Amino acid sequence: MQQRAKDTRLAVIEGAARVFAEIGYGNASLADITKRAGVTKGALYFHFTSKRELALAVIDEQHAMVLAAGSEIVAASAPALEKLIRLCRMFGQQLLDEPIVQGGIRLTFEASAFQADVSGPYEDWINTAEQLLAQATTDGTVRTDLDPAAFARYLIASFTGVQMVSDVLTAREDVLLRIDQMWEFMLPALTAGTSE
Amino acid sequence: MQQRAKDTRLAVIEGAARVFAEIGYGNASLADITKRAGVTKGALYFHFTSKRELALAVIDEQHAMVLAAGSEIVAASAPALEKLIRLCRMFGQQLLDEPIVQGGIRLTFEASAFQADVSGPYEDWINTAEQLLAQATTDGTVRTDLDPAAFARYLIASFTGVQMVSDVLTAREDVLLRIDQMWEFMLPALTAGTSE
Repeated sequence: MQQRAKDTRLAVIEGAARVFAEIGYGNASLADITKRAGVTKGALYFHFTSKRELALAVIDEQHAMVLAAGSEIVAASAPALEKLIRLCRMFGQQLLDEPIVQGGIRLTFEASAFQADVSGPYEDWINTAEQLLAQATTDGTVRTDLDPAAFARYLIASFTGVQMVSDVLTAREDVLLRIDQMWEFMLPALTAGTSE
Repeated sequence: MQQRAKDTRLAVIEGAARVFAEIGYGNASLADITKRAGVTKGALYFHFTSKRELALAVIDEQHAMVLAAGSEIVAASAPALEKLIRLCRMFGQQLLDEPIVQGGIRLTFEASAFQADVSGPYEDWINTAEQLLAQATTDGTVRTDLDPAAFARYLIASFTGVQMVSDVLTAREDVLLRIDQMWEFMLPALTAGTSE
């Protein structure tokens, strides 16, 4: 794709993400989205044939964006447990700052409305967490008898609920505080019996 | 309301809950619901004027149903921490068994699609958990320096995420197992420093 076409595609995705984040899948129209993206109907239809296709593209773009920021954290030099905590904070910050992430997460919760399978992103994060937890049991910051798969599943599920309930009760105002509290309450299960 | 009218109203709510649980708010029609409830259009319109009103009634009925089962557990004679664990298991079981609960929870996640404020049920459960945790700090099963409000918020958020991710990844097949694992990972944060 030429750069100009790529730019237009991304503008459409970002406009769509903002509209979906604000009013949800069911209430959004393609007219709202072209208006918000500042593109013509023709430009939108050049890239996307339906609202559903656009919603799937927003979810993909959101997941790619958070995974990219996550890869930097995973590649950095730090203990595995520290990386896991940083990943959660990064995701929380992106929920506050990035319209594409706000739109993608709202669409992920509403995915049943447009028959989308959103298990992939959950599985990616559970796998990432499992690998980091396995490293942490090896480097001794986490108890050696921890089941990394079970805890990873619990961590990603908890994180999902924490940010969702923060959205329902405070429009995400307290999301970073609640993520920090989540870790405070999780650490004893991880470190019991280690030298820490 | 006469008993017969009450029965019809409940049949409509249960039919609606089944339809909403299966295909979601956006895809459900009042025709689907009358068919599933086995009532006439006239009977439905006698009680409800719109799909939105029906969705709100399903959420109310679901919350009342789980609260009622919860009240029995809270009133029983058992340590407060044990009651809290039983409440979570009961909710998990109702998610497997009760169409009204399945419909109500799906609608709660989709609530933005019909501009419903669903903070009330979350707050009710957070308050219930906070009171039980405060009792548990007094009866010595939970560490005395625990912040019951912060932990209650974390517990309800975690529970929400655990059952949601179980639904996305396994259609709730593993929900009871994941609730038990959640408690296994939560207990160390609660009991550290007590005599247990």
